[in-house]
Amino acid sequence: MTINDMTQTQPLQAAQARLSAQPFTILIGAELVSIGDGTCELKIPIREDLKQQYGFVHGGVVSYAADNSLTIAAALAMNAQVVTSEMKINYIRPAIGDYLVARAQCIHHGKTQAVSRCDVFVASGDGEKLCAVAQGTIVKLAGTQAVGNERI
Amino acid sequence: MTINDMTQTQPLQAAQARLSAQPFTILIGAELVSIGDGTCELKIPIREDLKQQYGFVHGGVVSYAADNSLTIAAALAMNAQVVTSEMKINYIRPAIGDYLVARAQCIHHGKTQAVSRCDVFVASGDGEKLCAVAQGTIVKLAGTQAVGNERI
Amino acid sequence: MTINDMTQTQPLQAAQARLSAQPFTILIGAELVSIGDGTCELKIPIREDLKQQYGFVHGGVVSYAADNSLTIAAALAMNAQVVTSEMKINYIRPAIGDYLVARAQCIHHGKTQAVSRCDVFVASGDGEKLCAVAQGTIVKLAGTQAVGNERI
Amino acid sequence: MTINDMTQTQPLQAAQARLSAQPFTILIGAELVSIGDGTCELKIPIREDLKQQYGFVHGGVVSYAADNSLTIAAALAMNAQVVTSEMKINYIRPAIGDYLVARAQCIHHGKTQAVSRCDVFVASGDGEKLCAVAQGTIVKLAGTQAVGNERI
Repeated sequence: MTINDMTQTQPLQAAQARLSAQPFTILIGAELVSIGDGTCELKIPIREDLKQQYGFVHGGVVSYAADNSLTIAAALAMNAQVVTSEMKINYIRPAIGDYLVARAQCIHHGKTQAVSRCDVFVASGDGEKLCAVAQGTIVKLAGTQAVGNERI
Repeated sequence: MTINDMTQTQPLQAAQARLSAQPFTILIGAELVSIGDGTCELKIPIREDLKQQYGFVHGGVVSYAADNSLTIAAALAMNAQVVTSEMKINYIRPAIGDYLVARAQCIHHGKTQAVSRCDVFVASGDGEKLCAVAQGTIVKLAGTQAVGNERI
Repeated sequence: MTINDMTQTQPLQAAQARLSAQPFTILIGAELVSIGDGTCELKIPIREDLKQQYGFVHGGVVSYAADNSLTIAAALAMNAQVVTSEMKINYIRPAIGDYLVARAQCIHHGKTQAVSRCDVFVASGDGEKLCAVAQGTIVKLAGTQAVGNERI
Repeated sequence: MTINDMTQTQPLQAAQARLSAQPFTILIGAELVSIGDGTCELKIPIREDLKQQYGFVHGGVVSYAADNSLTIAAALAMNAQVVTSEMKINYIRPAIGDYLVARAQCIHHGKTQAVSRCDVFVASGDGEKLCAVAQGTIVKLAGTQAVGNERI
């Protein structure tokens, strides 16, 4: 492992630690797969208790994945504590598979707010299928600054 | 109890039974408080494991409440099995309190799709405060018809 | 005319003057019908050059009406210069008639941003029909303050 | 010019002819720059009468560009007559420059509806700057089929 690798790894662990500080994230079972400069990838293994009555993942879980990944991508781009201001999601196909993967990218950020986009895929042995796309606004919490891993 | 009361009660029980057929709804702990012609009221007692790291209810729970209530309101208006096509939510203030209440109304419905709006409140001893507003499109599942309680 | 009437009339004129300072508003032909505390009503007479190829009002005109009325309602509630941050619109039915009427209400406003909702109706001799519903976020321009008619 | 070139050119002319059948498009002055399989690029030269009072392009013009390009991209992907069902737009920066360029892509389409995304740029001698991003749902008009240039 190179120093660069460590540098890449440590922020992921710090970001995961921040994410795992959310009790609801623990309940859902989401984990960060990777983070970059204004990007992130969030994974949610599909369990029975995350489904709705037709057997596919509940829209609320898909929108959780979109909401959180949009916001983490913005937090990474702004290097600040942020909250989701608003979000729009289009559900494209039923999420049936082994796990969800949400990939988000911060499209633009200014001093106080950012706009991110996200694709949510459902993955199984057959590969990945797009199941939702989202777009949202994320705002910096007043008075926050970029300190260590206080980024999500 | 009058016949009218029974009539009002039975659909609520049937709708609640449909809602409780969603494992994720059981996980979240949501319950229907009332239903009407194209309206519904959904309640979620706030528990520790529904929160995020700042101590208020996670946006994913609030958007679950919005998503489900928008869709139930449309299902009741269309008297058909439906799925959420898309949704937009604005988070207005942190949800800190005893329970969430989402009140949704179907604004318009045609043969194949409907538009609903929803207000999500957080309630405590101090009363209710608006914490999110949402708007979305709900589509009828192809081939479904109005049969008994197959409405959500 | 009473003093109260004058008070009610003058802000409308001032708001209309602000609106008419938008060249695109002149091109579209929009006018303010009424304003209140966080509410407004905007009217657009339907002309041939506002239509699309199927003979009804172009979605761009309907979204102009939504965008502007959402923003004016927020400006009136916040008493400040504002800009639209984002908006979502659902088109409900084709707009065929004599004029559009957009009625917007500011749902919530804080120090820096507001959330408004809007209904757009198409009106003719048959009365009004709902043709679109919208919801959006409006942000205060930094450094602006409530001075006279600088409200839109 | 090869036959292939002609084939590429003719659909653009046909699509432009369809777009120019919209009186509001003539009023705005929009033109199609290119089309592909589920993609399009729309250009609007910036004129004084498309601006608002602060000197930048009115949000209604930007949302017109988003709405139309989202819908044309979906029409090209579905090869059918379509209408916009709903749209969400985030305004990112004031549009100050020589012309707007909206680039849209159909993300997914089924039998009856499609989801598209769009980036709207403002261009000047300094190059292009992103000024808005949008996402929307487009629905096929019932009973329409793919016949010649009836695609927008």
